Amino acid sequence: MTTAPTKPTTQHVPAGVCTHVSLIEMVFPEQTNHYGTLFGGQALALMDKAAFVVASRYCRRTVVTASSEKTDFWAPVSQGQLVELDATVVEVGRSSIRVRVELWAEDLLSGDRHLATRGDFVLVALDAHGKPTRVPALAEGNV
Amino acid sequence: MTTAPTKPTTQHVPAGVCTHVSLIEMVFPEQTNHYGTLFGGQALALMDKAAFVVASRYCRRTVVTASSEKTDFWAPVSQGQLVELDATVVEVGRSSIRVRVELWAEDLLSGDRHLATRGDFVLVALDAHGKPTRVPALAEGNV
Amino acid sequence: MTTAPTKPTTQHVPAGVCTHVSLIEMVFPEQTNHYGTLFGGQALALMDKAAFVVASRYCRRTVVTASSEKTDFWAPVSQGQLVELDATVVEVGRSSIRVRVELWAEDLLSGDRHLATRGDFVLVALDAHGKPTRVPALAEGNV
Amino acid sequence: MTTAPTKPTTQHVPAGVCTHVSLIEMVFPEQTNHYGTLFGGQALALMDKAAFVVASRYCRRTVVTASSEKTDFWAPVSQGQLVELDATVVEVGRSSIRVRVELWAEDLLSGDRHLATRGDFVLVALDAHGKPTRVPALAEGNV
Amino acid sequence: MTTAPTKPTTQHVPAGVCTHVSLIEMVFPEQTNHYGTLFGGQALALMDKAAFVVASRYCRRTVVTASSEKTDFWAPVSQGQLVELDATVVEVGRSSIRVRVELWAEDLLSGDRHLATRGDFVLVALDAHGKPTRVPALAEGNV
Amino acid sequence: MTTAPTKPTTQHVPAGVCTHVSLIEMVFPEQTNHYGTLFGGQALALMDKAAFVVASRYCRRTVVTASSEKTDFWAPVSQGQLVELDATVVEVGRSSIRVRVELWAEDLLSGDRHLATRGDFVLVALDAHGKPTRVPALAEGNV
Repeated sequence: MTTAPTKPTTQHVPAGVCTHVSLIEMVFPEQTNHYGTLFGGQALALMDKAAFVVASRYCRRTVVTASSEKTDFWAPVSQGQLVELDATVVEVGRSSIRVRVELWAEDLLSGDRHLATRGDFVLVALDAHGKPTRVPALAEGNV
Repeated sequence: MTTAPTKPTTQHVPAGVCTHVSLIEMVFPEQTNHYGTLFGGQALALMDKAAFVVASRYCRRTVVTASSEKTDFWAPVSQGQLVELDATVVEVGRSSIRVRVELWAEDLLSGDRHLATRGDFVLVALDAHGKPTRVPALAEGNV
Repeated sequence: MTTAPTKPTTQHVPAGVCTHVSLIEMVFPEQTNHYGTLFGGQALALMDKAAFVVASRYCRRTVVTASSEKTDFWAPVSQGQLVELDATVVEVGRSSIRVRVELWAEDLLSGDRHLATRGDFVLVALDAHGKPTRVPALAEGNV
Repeated sequence: MTTAPTKPTTQHVPAGVCTHVSLIEMVFPEQTNHYGTLFGGQALALMDKAAFVVASRYCRRTVVTASSEKTDFWAPVSQGQLVELDATVVEVGRSSIRVRVELWAEDLLSGDRHLATRGDFVLVALDAHGKPTRVPALAEGNV
Repeated sequence: MTTAPTKPTTQHVPAGVCTHVSLIEMVFPEQTNHYGTLFGGQALALMDKAAFVVASRYCRRTVVTASSEKTDFWAPVSQGQLVELDATVVEVGRSSIRVRVELWAEDLLSGDRHLATRGDFVLVALDAHGKPTRVPALAEGNV
Repeated sequence: MTTAPTKPTTQHVPAGVCTHVSLIEMVFPEQTNHYGTLFGGQALALMDKAAFVVASRYCRRTVVTASSEKTDFWAPVSQGQLVELDATVVEVGRSSIRVRVELWAEDLLSGDRHLATRGDFVLVALDAHGKPTRVPALAEGNV
C-alpha cells in the first residue's frame, strides 16, 4: 500500500524562517501528582522543550536556555489529556531569542481545550566554542 | 512579563474537523542502536502515536490500532536529530480510520530534512463498551 | 548462600547458530491507552526489539531494520499482563534476515495466554562502514 | 549481616515542622542537549519536584504549583555531574507556600560544586475537594 | 504476508509447571555509570524482575520479594551488551519460593558471553487479602 | 524576586569528609507491582544509587558495586509514598567502602514513616585504568 514517494523527499529550511512550532504531548502517570494532574515542573519542562525547538530552527545554532520568566498555572492538566504547546519567537537580540509558549490542554473525547499556562523563555545561541553568537534579525510583522 | 490572557482561553474542536496533525520529537540515546540511529521499532511507535492523535481528534472516540501496513525504512535517523511526524486521515470506513504517517528527520544545525519512512495505520473507533462505533464521513477534498 | 560458580562462566555462541529468541516484557501504564491496553506502536517496538536480538545473534553483525510487513492486531494486551515475544529467523538473503515475531499476552494469575499479533521484520547486516555485508546461509530444517 | 533493627522503625513528622529538604539527582543523557548539558526545562522540573516535597511535608496536604518566578540559569550542568537541590520554605500565606530552590552542580571526582540556578515556586495546599485550605503559620526565625 | 494463524492461538499454563524463565535485556545509557558499565543496583533490579516472572508463573499468585541474598558482582556489564537473566525456582516452602538468578552478559558482535553475577531471591505468594498463601510443592528432579 | 546570589556560589568538598547522604525519591507506577507496591528490585536499585553517591563523595574516585549483602524487605512501600534513603559509610578497607542504606517510606499526608528495609553494599574505588585504588581511612567516631 505504501509505494516509493514521488513528492520531493528532501527539504531545506534555512535560519531566520521558522518562528513558530506546535508540539503535541500525551500526559502519562509518571508526570502526574496524587490528583492525577500534571506537575508544574513537568509543564515547564515541556514548555522549555518547545522553546528549544523553535529557537534552534530559527537560528540554526545550538541554543541553551538563559532564563524562564514568571509563569502562572491557571488550570490543571489531567492524565489522559493531550497537551499542545504553541511556541513563538517574539523578540530577538544580538544572540538571544525570546520565545513565548502557550500550553493548551485538550480533552480528546469532548474536543474541549483550555489554555493552562503561558510563559516566556529566553535562549542564547552559541558557536562551536560555546560563546554567544549572532542570530538573524526578526522580520517585521513576523509575530 | 506574562499577563492574564486577553484572547479566548477556551476552544472547542468537534469531531470530523481535524484530519492532519504534525508531531515533533527529539531522538534520545535509549531509542538508538550501536550506530546511534533510531531503532525501526521506535520509529513505528512514534508513527502509531501520531496516527492515534489524529484519529482520536477526527472521531472524538477512543481509538485502537487494528493494523499497520508494510513500512520501508529508507534512511536512518540519528540521535540528536529532530523527528517530525505528519499524520493525515486518508480514508474512513464505517468505524475505521486509515492514517498515513510520514516521518521526516531534520538536522537542527543545517536545516536539512529528509523523508525517512512512510506508513499507513488503520485505527478503529470504540464506544464505551469497547464495540466498534460509527465515525464521521470524510469530507470531499479533505486530503 | 551464593558461592563462586563451579560451572563454566564463559560461553561463545558463533554466528549462524541462534535462530530463535524469546523475550518477556511487562506492560506498564506509560505504554497503554485510556482503556489500559497496549498501544499498537508499543507492540511494534517490542516486536522489532525481538527481531533485532535474534538477527544480531544470528549474524553477529550490526543490523538495522529495513522494513516491517503488514501486521494485524487480533486482540488487546492489558496493563499488568506479561508479553512474550517469540522471534524466529525464517528466511535469509545475501545480507538480509527475515524474522517472524509472535506476540503472546499472558495473564499471570490465570495462566491463560493468547496470540495477540504476529508480524515479519526484515533486517540488514552492516559492516563497519555501514555497508550491507554477507550473512550465514540458513541451515535446512532450521525453521 | 543485616539483623532486625533495634532502633525505632516508625516515626511521625507532623505538619509545620519540616521547612527544608535536600534532593540529590544524577544527570542522564536523555536530560541533556547536544553539548551534554542539562536542558533548562529539566532543571526546572527537578526544582519543582524539590519544592513539591518540602511544601507537602510542611503542610501535610496535597499541594499543586501555582506559579514559578523568573529563573536565571547562571552556569551549565553537565551529564555525569550530581545535582543537589536545596529547597526552603521562605514565606507562608493563608493557603500558599513559597519555596526557594537552589540547584547546585557537583563534580563527583573533584568535589567542586557551583550554584547553577535559583528560583522561587509558589504552591497551594488543597483539601479533599480540591479547594485551597489553610496551612500552618511559619515559625519566627525558621528561615 | 501475515495470514491468520492456523496454529492454536490460545494456551493455558497452570500453576506448578513453569520453573525456569530466561529474560533478555539491552543495557542503555541511563542504567550505566561513568565507565559505561551497568550499575549494580540496575543488575539487581533486572534479577528481581526475572525472579518475579518465574515465581508468578510457578504459583499463579501475586508474589512480592521478601529478601535478596548476598550477591557478588564478578564482572562488569557494558552499555550495548545484551543481558540474559536465567531464573530458576530452586526451593519451595509453604508460601515462599526461592529463585536463583544468573545474569549473563553477551557481546552481540563477538558472541562471547560471561557470567557476571548470580543471586537468590525469596518471594512470597499472597492471596487477595495480601496474606501469605500456599504454593504448589516442587516436583522431584525439577531443578 | 530572584537576584544574583551574594552568598558564595562555589564550594569544594574534598575526599574523606562526606560519610552520609540522604536521598528522596517518589514512587511511580512503572516501579510498582499489581498491588501498587514498590518492586523489591526497584528498592535495591534506589539503595545502590544512594550507596554510589555517598561512596563517590567519600573517596572522590569512580566507584563500582562489588557486592550487596542479604536484604530483607520488612514492609511494603506504596505508590504515591515518598522514599527516603539514608546511606552511611560504615567501614573502609584499602580500596573498598561498605555503605549501610536504610530505606524509609513516608506517607506525605499523615507524616507517618516506617523503615521498610536496610542493607549493606560494598563498593570499590577504581583508578583511571579501572584498577582498585586506595581510599581515605575512616576517622574515629565518624559513624
